[in-house]
Amino acid sequence: MRHYKTQMDAAKKGIITPEMIAVAKKEYRTPEEIRSLVAKGQVAICANRLHTCISPAGVGSSLRTKINVNLGVSGDCRDYNGEMEKVMAAVNMGADAIMDLSSHGNTQPFRRKLISECPAMIGTVPVYDSVIHYQRDLDTLTAKDFIDVIRLHAEDGVDFVTIHCGITKKTIQQIKNHKRKMNIVSRGGSLVFAWMSMTGEENPFYEYYDEILDICREYDVTVSLGDACRPGCLADSGDVCQIEELVRLGELTKRAWEKDVQVIVEGPGHMPLDQIEANMKLQKTVCMGAPFYVLGPIVTDIAPGYDHITSAIGGAIAAASGAAFLCYVTPAEHLALPDVEDVKQGIIASKIAAHAADIAKKIPHARDIDDKMADARRSFDWEGQWECSIDPETAKKIRDERKPEIKESCSMCGKFCAVRSMNKALSGEHIDIL
Amino acid sequence: MRHYKTQMDAAKKGIITPEMIAVAKKEYRTPEEIRSLVAKGQVAICANRLHTCISPAGVGSSLRTKINVNLGVSGDCRDYNGEMEKVMAAVNMGADAIMDLSSHGNTQPFRRKLISECPAMIGTVPVYDSVIHYQRDLDTLTAKDFIDVIRLHAEDGVDFVTIHCGITKKTIQQIKNHKRKMNIVSRGGSLVFAWMSMTGEENPFYEYYDEILDICREYDVTVSLGDACRPGCLADSGDVCQIEELVRLGELTKRAWEKDVQVIVEGPGHMPLDQIEANMKLQKTVCMGAPFYVLGPIVTDIAPGYDHITSAIGGAIAAASGAAFLCYVTPAEHLALPDVEDVKQGIIASKIAAHAADIAKKIPHARDIDDKMADARRSFDWEGQWECSIDPETAKKIRDERKPEIKESCSMCGKFCAVRSMNKALSGEHIDIL
Repeated sequence: MRHYKTQMDAAKKGIITPEMIAVAKKEYRTPEEIRSLVAKGQVAICANRLHTCISPAGVGSSLRTKINVNLGVSGDCRDYNGEMEKVMAAVNMGADAIMDLSSHGNTQPFRRKLISECPAMIGTVPVYDSVIHYQRDLDTLTAKDFIDVIRLHAEDGVDFVTIHCGITKKTIQQIKNHKRKMNIVSRGGSLVFAWMSMTGEENPFYEYYDEILDICREYDVTVSLGDACRPGCLADSGDVCQIEELVRLGELTKRAWEKDVQVIVEGPGHMPLDQIEANMKLQKTVCMGAPFYVLGPIVTDIAPGYDHITSAIGGAIAAASGAAFLCYVTPAEHLALPDVEDVKQGIIASKIAAHAADIAKKIPHARDIDDKMADARRSFDWEGQWECSIDPETAKKIRDERKPEIKESCSMCGKFCAVRSMNKALSGEHIDIL
Repeated sequence: MRHYKTQMDAAKKGIITPEMIAVAKKEYRTPEEIRSLVAKGQVAICANRLHTCISPAGVGSSLRTKINVNLGVSGDCRDYNGEMEKVMAAVNMGADAIMDLSSHGNTQPFRRKLISECPAMIGTVPVYDSVIHYQRDLDTLTAKDFIDVIRLHAEDGVDFVTIHCGITKKTIQQIKNHKRKMNIVSRGGSLVFAWMSMTGEENPFYEYYDEILDICREYDVTVSLGDACRPGCLADSGDVCQIEELVRLGELTKRAWEKDVQVIVEGPGHMPLDQIEANMKLQKTVCMGAPFYVLGPIVTDIAPGYDHITSAIGGAIAAASGAAFLCYVTPAEHLALPDVEDVKQGIIASKIAAHAADIAKKIPHARDIDDKMADARRSFDWEGQWECSIDPETAKKIRDERKPEIKESCSMCGKFCAVRSMNKALSGEHIDIL
């Protein structure tokens, strides 16, 4: 029998939970350090009490940077089993969280399957699912309908839910007046905006926020405060719409913590490289150290087909400057539903960004594997190099396809290989280049 | 009849050259601004007076970031015509410079063909070519042999030559004592080190630096000061070996400028993300604003097969913090000689990094194309989007392969498309999601 409602409730009461112990072990910290961070809201352990197969992970800027993979069934891709295979492949490739963005058919069986089988954190965006769940047009849904879907997700065992509660009636006017190039590009945010536009009512997720928090407290669902106004292009970045919403999210963070509900805060988006660090620092103060979950940031708008790279650049800088959680972006972003290869490329690019940031942040032991790789490279231990590689098969394939004339070296430099020359020079051997 | 020896000589004399006018036009600056930057050494216009088909470009941190593509014939790839096709494809994809790193056979015909046909800046590393040119073992070559090859390259019309003159006898001891994980990974640097180790003599490129400068002055060859000690892994980054060499390169920059020889300075290498900005600033002070040419920086060692991404992260940060010139890195780095597809991927990743940095640095008009893209996205103008794309064919292919159910949108979100919902909401239309 648990004597606490949520991880944060336990942490504030001085209780160290099994989840905190598990996180501490993974992160080379003491359970007490983790408890203290959870109590302050600086780490969220997104773990619904009903998600029993979870391998608990902590999200916070002082811990290893986590990555999220968006999957789910859509009108353009209705294959349930195929999607579940993608989920498990993503977890095996290192995804720490899976967001189920299913937008077609009966979404509950897939969601329940995820919760019963997947050890990663599971997140959802209940506003999408509302339209599908009720099979009714958006403007016919009531505030109660939306809240009921949040409860359904909580009961199904979802670990974190994205709620777009930072925009209000005032935002509608602001978006209209401000004439952003891309208006709102958050899928959930646009639905909330559309519902408010059509009904003339206040944002139900803002208006009934306390009721939502009560549900989240009951199951220990972490609230992921959605950024409806995240910039959808460089020109909109850091504008009044984005920053006013961030201020609202800071207030909502405080209200959640008062009910011991854990919080993560969503962030940009498309953003010029020079704005990223400042934005991360702003979020830290405004949201009092709550973990920041960024979607990108994408540092140029002109690279469709390569947005895993534009967001690896932005994500690495963001995580090194304080973001805790990176949403993967695939090469198909802005173009199509990602296929299996896109998912893989997206995960690898995000993992590179997260790992580079962890090294920069001096996360304990983050660089160990890089040092091991360097030793393997110096000694031409190719098997050792594959063991340290983020994607050993791809690396091995590139080398094997183009066999070098000098066996220990590679076909890029052949006998001109600097490592080879140096090893010979330092051991006093004669150096043959020709 | 030119009344000046080099662009820098002209600039110091107050002469505005045709090359300065061409650069000014490309960079939205006045010829006088460019002249002033060249006079101070903050911009190098790498243009050998014999490279008559060149389209002059300026390298400097206040100008658009330039990218270099390494190509050339090697023992593992001896196809001259194939390599020339790669060169022209690279230029069409946006390469500003081609470094000819040929390391096999008679290198002169390919080099001359490059100079007579290629409008991009051409760079070489004469130390490689010395071994090949004389077809003799490294330790049989004399200082004079090396200098003669530099002269040969200058006479052939090469625009910039990499000279590893920053290491001395003292460095040999330092490298041995310091016990770096990766010693020296610069190909040219390792040859110089090996030659010094075997002969016991001082670095000929350091010892005869004045003679080299006289050759460069004669043809207006820009000296690219090679960083033999650039870190080959994160563990070696920012160590005494690297920084002492940088200090030497600062002194050598000054000596070159005294003879009106233009300079670019090479930089890292493998480097943790948090060290990059500081390194760029250090180079700026130590080398008095000379353009910095970085090879990466690669921000983690564990991603062979994906080093175009690790270096896009580092390159974007470096260029935003002051680097002027990025050497491309391909997915084959550390593994094999890049093939045509690798070259393409390397160029695109470098261009993304350079462009993201130019936006961050507020280079005039850099963001115009991003703003145009945003307008095309908002209005579902897909043709307009392809026009703004860095690689239109790839982007179009991804979308076309996975046709959406809603024609104007894409298969990622279908009817849930935020842009579609917002366009309808803002024009007062009913929003149909189901």
